[in-house]
Amino acid sequence: MDDDLVVSAAELTERATDYLVARGAPLREARVQATHLVEAELRGHPSHGLRRLTVLGERIARGVLEPAAEPELTWVAQAALRVDGRGGFGPVAAYAAIDALRDRLDETGVAVASLHNTHHLGMLAPYVERICAEGAAGLVLSSTEGLVHPWGGAGALLGTNPIGIGIPAAGGDLIVDMSSGAVSAGKILDYRARGLPLPEGWAVDAAGEPTTDAAAAAEGAISPFGGAKGYALGLAFGSLVGALTGTAYGPAVRGTLDAETPTTKGDVIVVFHAALLAGGDERAALGAYLDAVRASGVRGPATIPGDRARTARGAHVRDGVRIAADVWALIAPATASATEPEAEAEAEPENETGEEDVPS
Amino acid sequence: MDDDLVVSAAELTERATDYLVARGAPLREARVQATHLVEAELRGHPSHGLRRLTVLGERIARGVLEPAAEPELTWVAQAALRVDGRGGFGPVAAYAAIDALRDRLDETGVAVASLHNTHHLGMLAPYVERICAEGAAGLVLSSTEGLVHPWGGAGALLGTNPIGIGIPAAGGDLIVDMSSGAVSAGKILDYRARGLPLPEGWAVDAAGEPTTDAAAAAEGAISPFGGAKGYALGLAFGSLVGALTGTAYGPAVRGTLDAETPTTKGDVIVVFHAALLAGGDERAALGAYLDAVRASGVRGPATIPGDRARTARGAHVRDGVRIAADVWALIAPATASATEPEAEAEAEPENETGEEDVPS
Repeated sequence: MDDDLVVSAAELTERATDYLVARGAPLREARVQATHLVEAELRGHPSHGLRRLTVLGERIARGVLEPAAEPELTWVAQAALRVDGRGGFGPVAAYAAIDALRDRLDETGVAVASLHNTHHLGMLAPYVERICAEGAAGLVLSSTEGLVHPWGGAGALLGTNPIGIGIPAAGGDLIVDMSSGAVSAGKILDYRARGLPLPEGWAVDAAGEPTTDAAAAAEGAISPFGGAKGYALGLAFGSLVGALTGTAYGPAVRGTLDAETPTTKGDVIVVFHAALLAGGDERAALGAYLDAVRASGVRGPATIPGDRARTARGAHVRDGVRIAADVWALIAPATASATEPEAEAEAEPENETGEEDVPS
Repeated sequence: MDDDLVVSAAELTERATDYLVARGAPLREARVQATHLVEAELRGHPSHGLRRLTVLGERIARGVLEPAAEPELTWVAQAALRVDGRGGFGPVAAYAAIDALRDRLDETGVAVASLHNTHHLGMLAPYVERICAEGAAGLVLSSTEGLVHPWGGAGALLGTNPIGIGIPAAGGDLIVDMSSGAVSAGKILDYRARGLPLPEGWAVDAAGEPTTDAAAAAEGAISPFGGAKGYALGLAFGSLVGALTGTAYGPAVRGTLDAETPTTKGDVIVVFHAALLAGGDERAALGAYLDAVRASGVRGPATIPGDRARTARGAHVRDGVRIAADVWALIAPATASATEPEAEAEAEPENETGEEDVPS
């Protein structure tokens, strides 16, 4: 941490764009992907930030990611869009899909996009935030590599299958962005590296027995969040993605973690014309309710999903983003313009309101 | 339990229909509502079964439930249906909405219904099962009375906000029907009546502090399932219902529990044309994946959401439904044709796969 630097979002975006352009990405596609990674940094989620550039770069080098790919958008029905990402960047396909869905929304009231043959979408929050920006509500689901065990079962048969939900509200949209694992794979590897026992409930060993041994957990699987109910939801989210996109299920999902295998993951994006369905603009009413929830806090305000990321983003846009030295070294120009960080000692946010590092 | 009776589903439906007709419901509406309550009994969820007849009967008597109401269905856009239940039975409005959405699906690929001014939908599983019956996938969300506290907050500001998810699969559709509370309100009242301490994590007291005292919990609130993540999802589900229907939020939701207050709850139903979006029929592929998940079980097969209810329903259709004597007394004809139960000692199913008694 001592070697961390603080860099402005604009500079990070420019450098990350250059990194991808140098590896064959056209400027426009590189900028969309780079901006999305920087958005994760701004929200305090470096696991989904610029550190991901290396996998993207290696994928391009091996020819399993086509950085110049333009997604092919096909309306298969009035409100149903099928998107072939043609092996390109996830954010390029996802933002193109969202723009197309939003253009259709006055006519249809709801619209869905089914994405295949595209790469990691990264954090889901920025997508549902864009959906909310014009008063629509939205859901985003992605399938991810098998890391989570079935409830009562052994083996990493379920993805961490994240969900993003955005609902427009006065005083700050309600933005959920969470995985359906109890904890991220990265955190278990971190405990193993530090020789620490895991808290109970995080993982099982290879035989499916609960374990607090991080090494055994790394050979086993992450537990679903929320026991049987969280398992049911995670399984359903992943299965829904497969069933609506024709992509792979569970252990057959690829495209997010490794640098070698062609992508087999899928994504689903649903956008609702909230005011049309509700018969009026609900933003003020929902905002008042969320304020009442905030005010219910026993020790400080209760957190609404989206609040903490919004606060972090504001601070980081203003003050710059703290970047690990090894990540900065990836993208730094010959004469780096970064400054040494102030002693702000920013901790990784805890998983307290469903906003967290999607472990994929 | 010694006074329980075993009655056939057909007879239960007939008697429950008679009960509602005698209180002013037209035959068709009475039968739809009665059939839905019996479907809960068949799945082993008596809390959502015929015991609910008394609240419906009292609501009719007080004029807050209009049993002859025909829901008004208005397409506000090509794929968006707004449903005014006109104060009638929930299942009448919900099945009418589902039929209308399905009729539209070939044209639109996805369709959504937003329901207001309607009563309790009851169990959500039968709706998503109907959606799956022709190969579509679906989501159903309802708002319910405030019973659950915010994460880190005090007071029953969140509904138990159930979710139903149905995804068609070979070998048995994946059917989720669960609330976002850690436990049902009924179970806490049952512990209080029996003077038993609650397991940790079920509830907080009126000040928002965790408690195992059932009496203090009854004055406080149920905890969300799955900690911060379950809180985030439950809050989002309830907020999405309000934002897409224009109905009430949190503590202002009414219509399910009491017998006096006009309904202010809402429901959202989304139906997806799975094969069109996926570019093919995914039922076999999803079924094979779910079979692999079943086979991963450490002590017997891992359960897929929907499996247990399907098994229970089959047995109860064949052998009849065990009905508590006081419930049977509500609807029994002068000469009851029920038989004494065999010594099958069927237990209430545990909350192990997200199929459970929605506590509302």
